[in-house]
Amino acid sequence: MRKKEFAVIGLGRFGGSICQELSREGMEVLAIDRDEEKVNQFKHIASHAVIADSTDETTLKELGIKNIDHVIVAIGDNIQASILTTVVLVELGVQRITVKAQNDYHAKILHKIGAHQVVHPERDMGRRIAHSIISNNIVDYLELSDDHSIVEVKAGKKMTGKSIIELDIRAKFGCTVVAIKQGRDINVSPTPDDILTENDILVVVGADKDIARFERQLVIDD
Amino acid sequence: MRKKEFAVIGLGRFGGSICQELSREGMEVLAIDRDEEKVNQFKHIASHAVIADSTDETTLKELGIKNIDHVIVAIGDNIQASILTTVVLVELGVQRITVKAQNDYHAKILHKIGAHQVVHPERDMGRRIAHSIISNNIVDYLELSDDHSIVEVKAGKKMTGKSIIELDIRAKFGCTVVAIKQGRDINVSPTPDDILTENDILVVVGADKDIARFERQLVIDD
Ligand SMILES: Nc1ncnc2c1ncn2[C@@H]1O[C@H](COP(=O)(O)OP(=O)(O)OP(=O)(O)O)[C@@H](O)[C@H]1O
Ligand SMILES: Nc1ncnc2c1ncn2[C@@H]1O[C@H](COP(=O)(O)OP(=O)(O)OP(=O)(O)O)[C@@H](O)[C@H]1O
Ligand SMILES: [Ca+2]
Ligand SMILES: [Ca+2]
Ligand SMILES: [Ca+2]
Ligand SMILES: [Ca+2]
Repeated sequence: MRKKEFAVIGLGRFGGSICQELSREGMEVLAIDRDEEKVNQFKHIASHAVIADSTDETTLKELGIKNIDHVIVAIGDNIQASILTTVVLVELGVQRITVKAQNDYHAKILHKIGAHQVVHPERDMGRRIAHSIISNNIVDYLELSDDHSIVEVKAGKKMTGKSIIELDIRAKFGCTVVAIKQGRDINVSPTPDDILTENDILVVVGADKDIARFERQLVIDD
Repeated sequence: MRKKEFAVIGLGRFGGSICQELSREGMEVLAIDRDEEKVNQFKHIASHAVIADSTDETTLKELGIKNIDHVIVAIGDNIQASILTTVVLVELGVQRITVKAQNDYHAKILHKIGAHQVVHPERDMGRRIAHSIISNNIVDYLELSDDHSIVEVKAGKKMTGKSIIELDIRAKFGCTVVAIKQGRDINVSPTPDDILTENDILVVVGADKDIARFERQLVIDD
């Protein structure tokens, strides 16, 4: 099986992070930005790093972009450049195109012109962080569906010294504790008689309304 | 108990999303930006929306910012304004200050001057998306610790028609299936004899190295 090749266009904070993480995982990545300084930053991180304006079809052709398996467009503020770049990539027949959107209107256009995946990093992270700051004890958050989530919560005062079976989380709230973090240790198969300490972090899966009830009664300190 | 009050300074995509989500959850939010257009956008979303330059101490005092329980600074490109704003908030004695960082250097300074929490939304989302695009079958991803994660993976061809016990995921890979998504339905207490279909999405918790092995053998289609 041939190794999968990626290209990241736009090396801002978001595109730069994708480029770095794909490279760290051993992937073949072509990094593109029209800003020389950005390109220099990624010279020793990506497999290749080139200065180019991605709205220019000829340049993208010359870079052999149509043979890249997955292209990520992470141009932000310049919506017009993001759309133009996507149009060119679709026309060149790139197999998979992921594009970062500025807003819902931008996202709609990107879907219409043939982007395969549209992402909203700031919006999604804003939502996650909003949830984590509503309660100081909610540490992290993953939306599984419109009405189900996984949350990480600090055990806090109300749970300290109690076991999972004593708290009866499953029967009382319909949520399941799938892991417990204790400092740098993590237990991914917690047993009902595990005793919780104040700084433990519980990873809980369930319906949003059940999790909300669990948070109100056991997580949020008065 | 008095209702908790929040302020969001900087209504870009990230700050705007936090403001919207906190408001949607019924929280009291003061929205601040120096750009009138942004402020107008949030007039009917936040409890209060004001045009103000947050680097101006007198203005922040007049807004009564020191009585706000949690202030989020979501100024991006202008690192100097982000740092100045944070200094003022610390001096005014704000209880909890969360600040968005541009890069590691910015983050270090923010910690040093007294920010309580520093976040990197683009970087973190870039990492998440990088992991999800390495395999088309990895849908989402939550890092629990340095070496443990929760991943959402498509059942794909190799798991279709098999039950969880048949695949023996726990014994073979040391990972646990904590939920199964089937279209709009989600099952948060899967039983060992549940049969998987191609479009099912499995939510799996475990050590990164075990998850990686599971992905290589069962998730990534040849
Ligand atoms: N036509 C183009 N061709 C190549 N690169 C481009 C083009 N237009 C913009 N870029 C690059 O895209 C990168 C990201 O753009 P910008 O900083 O506007 O987005 P952002 O959404 O604010 O970024 P962040 O990911 O940091 O939030 C920049 O480095 C910019 O130089
Ligand atoms: N001194 C200031 N006082 C108030 N608001 C400010 C100040 N400086 C910047 N802002 C506002 O902060 C918001 C976010 O800034 P900017 O767009 O530079 O960040 P960004 O990181 O690119 O945003 P995004 O969250 O969209 O990725 C803007 O709406 C801007 O008007
Ligand atoms: Ca951004
Ligand atoms: Ca939801
Ligand atoms: Ca920007
Ligand atoms: Ca990790």
